[in-house]
Amino acid sequence: MSLIKRCTAETLGTFWLVFGGCGSAIFAAAYPELGIGFAGVALAFGLTLLTMCYAIGNISGCHINPAVTLGLVAGGRFPARDAIPYILAQVIGGLLAGGVLYLIASGKAGFDPVAGFASNGFGEHSPGNYSRNAALIAEIVLTAFFLFIIMGATHKRGHAGLAGVAIGLALTLIHLISIPITNTSVNPARSTGVAFFQGTWAMEQLWLFWVAPLIGGVIGALVYRFLHANDE
Amino acid sequence: MSLIKRCTAETLGTFWLVFGGCGSAIFAAAYPELGIGFAGVALAFGLTLLTMCYAIGNISGCHINPAVTLGLVAGGRFPARDAIPYILAQVIGGLLAGGVLYLIASGKAGFDPVAGFASNGFGEHSPGNYSRNAALIAEIVLTAFFLFIIMGATHKRGHAGLAGVAIGLALTLIHLISIPITNTSVNPARSTGVAFFQGTWAMEQLWLFWVAPLIGGVIGALVYRFLHANDE
Amino acid sequence: MSLIKRCTAETLGTFWLVFGGCGSAIFAAAYPELGIGFAGVALAFGLTLLTMCYAIGNISGCHINPAVTLGLVAGGRFPARDAIPYILAQVIGGLLAGGVLYLIASGKAGFDPVAGFASNGFGEHSPGNYSRNAALIAEIVLTAFFLFIIMGATHKRGHAGLAGVAIGLALTLIHLISIPITNTSVNPARSTGVAFFQGTWAMEQLWLFWVAPLIGGVIGALVYRFLHANDE
Amino acid sequence: MSLIKRCTAETLGTFWLVFGGCGSAIFAAAYPELGIGFAGVALAFGLTLLTMCYAIGNISGCHINPAVTLGLVAGGRFPARDAIPYILAQVIGGLLAGGVLYLIASGKAGFDPVAGFASNGFGEHSPGNYSRNAALIAEIVLTAFFLFIIMGATHKRGHAGLAGVAIGLALTLIHLISIPITNTSVNPARSTGVAFFQGTWAMEQLWLFWVAPLIGGVIGALVYRFLHANDE
Repeated sequence: MSLIKRCTAETLGTFWLVFGGCGSAIFAAAYPELGIGFAGVALAFGLTLLTMCYAIGNISGCHINPAVTLGLVAGGRFPARDAIPYILAQVIGGLLAGGVLYLIASGKAGFDPVAGFASNGFGEHSPGNYSRNAALIAEIVLTAFFLFIIMGATHKRGHAGLAGVAIGLALTLIHLISIPITNTSVNPARSTGVAFFQGTWAMEQLWLFWVAPLIGGVIGALVYRFLHANDE
Repeated sequence: MSLIKRCTAETLGTFWLVFGGCGSAIFAAAYPELGIGFAGVALAFGLTLLTMCYAIGNISGCHINPAVTLGLVAGGRFPARDAIPYILAQVIGGLLAGGVLYLIASGKAGFDPVAGFASNGFGEHSPGNYSRNAALIAEIVLTAFFLFIIMGATHKRGHAGLAGVAIGLALTLIHLISIPITNTSVNPARSTGVAFFQGTWAMEQLWLFWVAPLIGGVIGALVYRFLHANDE
Repeated sequence: MSLIKRCTAETLGTFWLVFGGCGSAIFAAAYPELGIGFAGVALAFGLTLLTMCYAIGNISGCHINPAVTLGLVAGGRFPARDAIPYILAQVIGGLLAGGVLYLIASGKAGFDPVAGFASNGFGEHSPGNYSRNAALIAEIVLTAFFLFIIMGATHKRGHAGLAGVAIGLALTLIHLISIPITNTSVNPARSTGVAFFQGTWAMEQLWLFWVAPLIGGVIGALVYRFLHANDE
Repeated sequence: MSLIKRCTAETLGTFWLVFGGCGSAIFAAAYPELGIGFAGVALAFGLTLLTMCYAIGNISGCHINPAVTLGLVAGGRFPARDAIPYILAQVIGGLLAGGVLYLIASGKAGFDPVAGFASNGFGEHSPGNYSRNAALIAEIVLTAFFLFIIMGATHKRGHAGLAGVAIGLALTLIHLISIPITNTSVNPARSTGVAFFQGTWAMEQLWLFWVAPLIGGVIGALVYRFLHANDE
């Protein structure tokens, strides 16, 4: 399929990830009494990825995350020449989702994106006030295992049909662990999509949510590649 | 299989979607201390669809939603001549479910359907007081992605066995995002089935929960069709 | 496989259903602050069934529920001559689970099974004080759809590998709807296993949790059979 | 594949189980208002196993638990000569995870591992104050059924692709039942990985979380083997 169509799929998929994951956090997490809490947000993020794996997996491979794209290049599963267009498409999708979330959230009195807008942060902007170093370690370790799982679940000797379930639920798991630490990124496009509209501290701290996921993703993919070195 | 049998399956399936989804909201969402909250209702709606996909998928295709039926016509996956009978069967199923829910709910002292009866609404009848425009945008965007996912998950190059999981959990995700906005419709038959028994404001606002899901469903299916244009 | 081995599997499977489902309710549902609530219990019941479908599905068919066994006889999927041994094995498994739950629960100061012990009830013993008629309707409708889903998900034109997922999650869904109404039975062996140890009102009301699920199960299986009448 | 690579996979997998399961408990379970509670921790533990089944199932078989390794030896599914290296690799993985959790948790003011650090315990260190005997029974019964399910789900006449789903969700179910009793072990490597950093009572009580799971695992595997005796 043409690169333009694959990139369109990546934009739509990343839109869905940010719209659904961050949207559930913005609209539903803290609703009085009946809100979905961090567990509901964790489920929502995972299901955006699970559903898109089955929707666009056969179009673009459903990365919808720059750390996944770069990791799969490092893991020998994706051509380096397509990485930049994919990542651009993902960031555009994330920003579009942030914009539509902004529109809907504006339909309720008292909305103020500066209050957070589901942005990622550390230190005083970590939900649980975890330090920058804790945030770095957590994002690197979690993205590394995310890519390790993606490499394994899509391995040619695996159960291809179930890969989307395993990978989507891996993202749910990652959120169950780390929302209190960084509000969970492991995905620079997700971080960028809402930080842009938060506009202040989220933009200042955005560097960490590009650096740590990209480093972690490459590490995880390389570890998997090494483990399978003589078998592929 | 004959149209009458397929429509019977659609009626039973839509009954289950409304009975299970709205029933969990009416009976269990706000139970003191132990209630299932919005996350439990979101899971219930998704599981009605997931279970019916495996129960009647091989009979009627398991639309159980007028927006899905119309979307699949637009997407070139369902014959237009069967759309009206399907939609009628779905609305009948939704109304029957509303009636049985009414019967059971009447078995508890103090029941009053006017208080809400799991109906969809906007403005002052939105759970979180979101405006009509916010409701329109949310319902259109969510139904569009719902159909996009359905088209992708049931594509002939996909993993057919898993489509019911992906599609059912897509409906869970949609509820995790939008119960606070409109109480989540994306399905005119679901809205109609309970609005009829609520009887006042839910009937007045019902138009939006036909218009927005039908528009969104068609958009989502057409976008998917365009993306796969030269490949099907 | 021999009937004795199949019945042993049914006993073990029903033990697991009652131990896991009722155990989660007894130990974890109302734990202060962190308890799993009705949604967690609903998930636990469904997962007992999902896990046993994959563990003993190829041994006994994994009914682990008298209403399922009788329904499958009515649906033409199970030989009538094996129904009584299966149902006996299931009741024994349920009672054994009730006994082990009693043993463990006794290891905490203040335990009193008369307080409930996860028993099913109606009227003043319904968690939400729903009437006997509401309980009857709910148990019949829910068990009917349960069997309808089981018949469909295990149909020879279905996706056999996923049947256990659909059927297990159907039981989760059923609990999400109806714990407040009857504490959810749809399974006479589950009701009997704990009512015996509750010992007072649960034994007096036990009849309803045999009658309603058995009637509902037969109805659901017959409806499905009719729908597929000329196709099997 | 070489034993060293399989053991590396077991170390990584057990790291993930302890990091994800215990991490969700340490960071997210009791977060004010929005915390994931016991149900979220139960889901997290199950998803660590589900995701690793698809990531390393085709490398090491994904035991990531000494009770599973010993059980599979008893069940005739794993060569006894590889058991010790596997178990050592698992314990190393658990300890490494405990260390990284310690590092991250230290990034928040007021952290004190002696307060619990997600360790397993009984009596006064049981979350719900359950006695040692209740803890023994619960851990033995739960690990026995865990191995029974693993043996069944990976049986050659089963649905291989779904085994990871069934086995992972079995671990979720086990946690839904028993977090209040022992904080749930069924896995000596998980218990050891955090007890070492808790350092006081968790080390004193650690023996039970080796003895009970190992006994239970062997029992469950033998029961399954007997049931299938003349069929394998």
